[in-house]
Amino acid sequence: MGDLKLVKKFEIGEGFFDRYEKLVRDVVLPYQEKALKDQIEGAEKSHCIENFRMAAEKLKTGRCDGEFYGMVFQDSDVAKWLEGAAYSLAQNPNEELEKRCDDIIELIGEAQQKDGYLNTYFTVKEPGRRWTNLHEAHELYCAGHMIEAAVAYAECTGKSRLLDIMCGMADHIYRHFIEEGAEGYPGHPEIELALMRLYRCTRENKYKELALHFINIRGVDSHYFTKEREKRGWSVWGAHPEDVEYAQNGAPVRKQDKAVGHAVRAVYLYTGMADAAMETGDRELTEACKTLWNNITQCRMYVTGAIGSAYEGEAFTRDYHLPNDTAYAETCAAIGLIFFSNKMLYLERNGKYADVMERALYNCVLAGMQLDGTRFFYVNPLEVLPGISGEAQTHKHALPVRPKWFACACCPPNVARLLASIAEYAWHVTPETLFSNLFIGGTLDLRDSLGGKITLETEYPYHNRIKYHFEPEKETMTVSLAIRIPAWSREATILVNGRPVQCAVQDGYAYLQGSFSAGDVVAAEFDLSVRRVYTSNKVSANTGKTAIQRGPLIYCIEGVDNENDILSVSLKKDGAIRVSEYLPDKLCGICELYAEGYRETVSDDLYSFEAPSAEECQVTLVPYYTWGNRGLNQMRVWIPEKK
Amino acid sequence: MGDLKLVKKFEIGEGFFDRYEKLVRDVVLPYQEKALKDQIEGAEKSHCIENFRMAAEKLKTGRCDGEFYGMVFQDSDVAKWLEGAAYSLAQNPNEELEKRCDDIIELIGEAQQKDGYLNTYFTVKEPGRRWTNLHEAHELYCAGHMIEAAVAYAECTGKSRLLDIMCGMADHIYRHFIEEGAEGYPGHPEIELALMRLYRCTRENKYKELALHFINIRGVDSHYFTKEREKRGWSVWGAHPEDVEYAQNGAPVRKQDKAVGHAVRAVYLYTGMADAAMETGDRELTEACKTLWNNITQCRMYVTGAIGSAYEGEAFTRDYHLPNDTAYAETCAAIGLIFFSNKMLYLERNGKYADVMERALYNCVLAGMQLDGTRFFYVNPLEVLPGISGEAQTHKHALPVRPKWFACACCPPNVARLLASIAEYAWHVTPETLFSNLFIGGTLDLRDSLGGKITLETEYPYHNRIKYHFEPEKETMTVSLAIRIPAWSREATILVNGRPVQCAVQDGYAYLQGSFSAGDVVAAEFDLSVRRVYTSNKVSANTGKTAIQRGPLIYCIEGVDNENDILSVSLKKDGAIRVSEYLPDKLCGICELYAEGYRETVSDDLYSFEAPSAEECQVTLVPYYTWGNRGLNQMRVWIPEKK
Repeated sequence: MGDLKLVKKFEIGEGFFDRYEKLVRDVVLPYQEKALKDQIEGAEKSHCIENFRMAAEKLKTGRCDGEFYGMVFQDSDVAKWLEGAAYSLAQNPNEELEKRCDDIIELIGEAQQKDGYLNTYFTVKEPGRRWTNLHEAHELYCAGHMIEAAVAYAECTGKSRLLDIMCGMADHIYRHFIEEGAEGYPGHPEIELALMRLYRCTRENKYKELALHFINIRGVDSHYFTKEREKRGWSVWGAHPEDVEYAQNGAPVRKQDKAVGHAVRAVYLYTGMADAAMETGDRELTEACKTLWNNITQCRMYVTGAIGSAYEGEAFTRDYHLPNDTAYAETCAAIGLIFFSNKMLYLERNGKYADVMERALYNCVLAGMQLDGTRFFYVNPLEVLPGISGEAQTHKHALPVRPKWFACACCPPNVARLLASIAEYAWHVTPETLFSNLFIGGTLDLRDSLGGKITLETEYPYHNRIKYHFEPEKETMTVSLAIRIPAWSREATILVNGRPVQCAVQDGYAYLQGSFSAGDVVAAEFDLSVRRVYTSNKVSANTGKTAIQRGPLIYCIEGVDNENDILSVSLKKDGAIRVSEYLPDKLCGICELYAEGYRETVSDDLYSFEAPSAEECQVTLVPYYTWGNRGLNQMRVWIPEKK
Repeated sequence: MGDLKLVKKFEIGEGFFDRYEKLVRDVVLPYQEKALKDQIEGAEKSHCIENFRMAAEKLKTGRCDGEFYGMVFQDSDVAKWLEGAAYSLAQNPNEELEKRCDDIIELIGEAQQKDGYLNTYFTVKEPGRRWTNLHEAHELYCAGHMIEAAVAYAECTGKSRLLDIMCGMADHIYRHFIEEGAEGYPGHPEIELALMRLYRCTRENKYKELALHFINIRGVDSHYFTKEREKRGWSVWGAHPEDVEYAQNGAPVRKQDKAVGHAVRAVYLYTGMADAAMETGDRELTEACKTLWNNITQCRMYVTGAIGSAYEGEAFTRDYHLPNDTAYAETCAAIGLIFFSNKMLYLERNGKYADVMERALYNCVLAGMQLDGTRFFYVNPLEVLPGISGEAQTHKHALPVRPKWFACACCPPNVARLLASIAEYAWHVTPETLFSNLFIGGTLDLRDSLGGKITLETEYPYHNRIKYHFEPEKETMTVSLAIRIPAWSREATILVNGRPVQCAVQDGYAYLQGSFSAGDVVAAEFDLSVRRVYTSNKVSANTGKTAIQRGPLIYCIEGVDNENDILSVSLKKDGAIRVSEYLPDKLCGICELYAEGYRETVSDDLYSFEAPSAEECQVTLVPYYTWGNRGLNQMRVWIPEKK
């Protein structure tokens, strides 16, 4: 069902993502490799490769110098980087990089215990405590990420060394939890979706069985973590097992109807659930996934596709609580929402799932990385005020500029692996239909199934037209193409060789079947008019305000473009909003927006009885994903609207 | 300088505060006495009287049954209640209550150690650790509150038993910190202002010296608490001594220019500083007080007079950060701001200080108590949304309905003692002038100084007129009267026997001198027009919004009056706002406001491109202090304003 097949088959071409693909290859992955190897001055220490070295040494000699350093899940940073590197290698063969990856994989192999167990925290630091703290210790989480890396590396490079290692670990987990009947489920879901990938790659049923096991027992005993803590008598960081929302274990997964707790845990779990539902046809599980997805996207998601309203627990809070300045909005959580939506799109062919993928990708996820690829946001607020953001005790997490690295560095490699595998989300190839979900320029090689290649040519999201060119191996290729019609587009025209055609539109996709020769062009034209977004009046933070969207891009105002005082700015209701020409040299290429608005003057007093006076002004907006690239600066997405 | 002299001289008469005076006497104090004695079903346990009993038993017999229970500062609840009871007894002699107070005082005496030391936490639970943890353990704080109670009880009842006890404790503190040269200053300021009161009551210079000592050494060694922790090796609750903002010890007090940290600690400290500055004429200290007061009121105060923007540390955050729904806005902090402003008003005769007292009193402080006197808010948010408030992890503190009591019960008795001593703030009697700061109906007995009584007759704050009646002992009484002209009143007329008179207005006071006979009436008429309040555009939470004020009262909208959907409501810019007649049966007597506004309809979707449609509607507002008296309910102070 699409796993990893497309990364190898899709060659990114000119267009918006071309720059990102090269950035990941040339900057992000090398930069992150250095970070993992502690070679970046002034950045937080990672030590994660060194942890593997120590574990290997300890297994070889019985002892090792130094101490484990970092988060209990530090191993996963290596895994996510390897996964990203695998995708990049699929697109860009690079012997040196592959050699370095192979070296790291050998080191991982040396750090694996004889019974298949792999985890440097426990091997180096807590050898006697394996599997005693599922709540906090992330063993299954780290295993899951390394399994994902193994599958990716095998499918992208054809080398199975890491896959063998991780099958060994998966077999160990199977023995422990299935054959030996150990109790419990992971505090941080991830193993479920990873085992589903491993199953699909290896076709070993036991991996599917193991994935379903963890999904099915989760929350059946909602006090499991409490009992575990009482039994184990030690703790990594004193987490509260009574908080059953935090790790989504308050009820069996099929009974869960609100997206609660730690947002990344939630969407990783739901991704695994959706994947399992797709594989098994389990209707109850499918319904639970739909309910949870609807709850997120209708009650708990920011307009940027970000999720997680609170720093406390990095978590969902309550329906319609979406504060802009204190948002948690973790980059990893938006990525997880893309994973979840992508699986839902396989479960139920409806453009709304791809709309959310696009929303999260073009706004929250891209904002998570500096345009130059060397700095990252963990937290992506929708409003930033220097002097408060990053400083007030309620805003310590909401940094106004991207740091170089993080002590908890889950997000940067997650961005890299998503961008490097974007083809998996852009296209879905099913036996019946080729779905074009996201419009990433490039060439898809479908010679093995459709007898030809298809090239998508587009300057999306800054241009309204996408064009599909066909390159059949023989005379023609027959394609059943489904083009997503984004919900933000008031109308859409499908053209075949320049002539508008009527085609069936269902659930957000235009379906078109035809036999195409070389030179044939199918095009779709969307309506890229600037649109004003309004929030349900249940969201207190946004009453009286509007956000501006053009195509998939949410825009924001920054101080640097607006006299360094964005809080005095409002937008004129029904006022004109002009779109600049494409500015290739600004913020790596954007269209700016110029809106009719007002600048209010009000007394300098904290409170006054003087009504503000307003002057008309031009308000300049830039795409949200580019914010914070021009130094310390105010930023706001939701802007008051006035007549 | 006014300490406690006026509580005995002022008899509250008909009017707004009459109900509160009786409520404190008949409901609040008896209710709180029961709470302190653990006699209220379903309320949080207090145990604070029991702690004293146990300490007494232990001192008598060397041991005691049971365990100390409650906060390390649990003793202070008894102190604040006794202080409130003392004020009430001054107004309403009550033999039974006085007997019960005397019994408690005897118990306190029995809980005092031979060297004068008094603190049940240390006597019962940690006898070997006296004075080793100034950062957390609140010994000086509890001593301060009991000293305030002692001074109040002595001045109100003429009985000196508690004063003797607390002079013993103050002498003990003097020996320890001055004669024996112990290092350190209190983690929670309070002793400073209390020692100033004790000095003024006893005229013992050593108490002033001790107050100045604690003020002068604070923050000189800003790492004192860190060193203390290293030395002591134990902790009450693991507070971080490195956080020098929290307890206002990052710099010597004369160098402090921002109100930081725990808001109650801050304003208690500043109250002591202002009192000391007044007593000593210390100009540097005076300037520091002015700077801090300006910082609070111009950058860090809610429109309700509440202070403290964050739950984290119950603290100030940064300038212009005033979130409405997650406000901490502790009742005690608003009370402390009244204490501080009252001292500032003695330091510098300017109506702005009384304006802030009035703002805090009529809005935040009164909102801290249910209208029936039996439930209390610790936290006074300016926006409440059931489903989020009190529930989301960021809003656990912002309860939508008042609880019966608190595990940390500092606020309820603080309200009682403030309301029962309101005369001290309403009037300032100086050798030259009688200042009428707050307009509380009642009779002030100034026979000893001015040769007569003055009765203030008013239905303020629901009526615009206040009248002073004179009752000279002989033919006439000569009075230099200064009437505060509130900043919210566009204009004010002073009338003598019905005839408008010109009088000098300076810094917010109208000065009027005259010789008055029985039957003479001086009146002031204020402008009670409804006013719209706007916030500086530096405050993000309030952009595009207005708050409604009438007289000193800030109004709010509640769901119960507005179709249970206040987030769809906006106010019409320049629209009419009608004032109801006085409704004696509604919310214990209020005027409602009916404003022209709009009710917006917007898509039920979380986000939509549909512009909201707006219908004109009538928006009903009630005074903020009455909110939350009609069940679980939405509430909002800052309301979007639209043309």
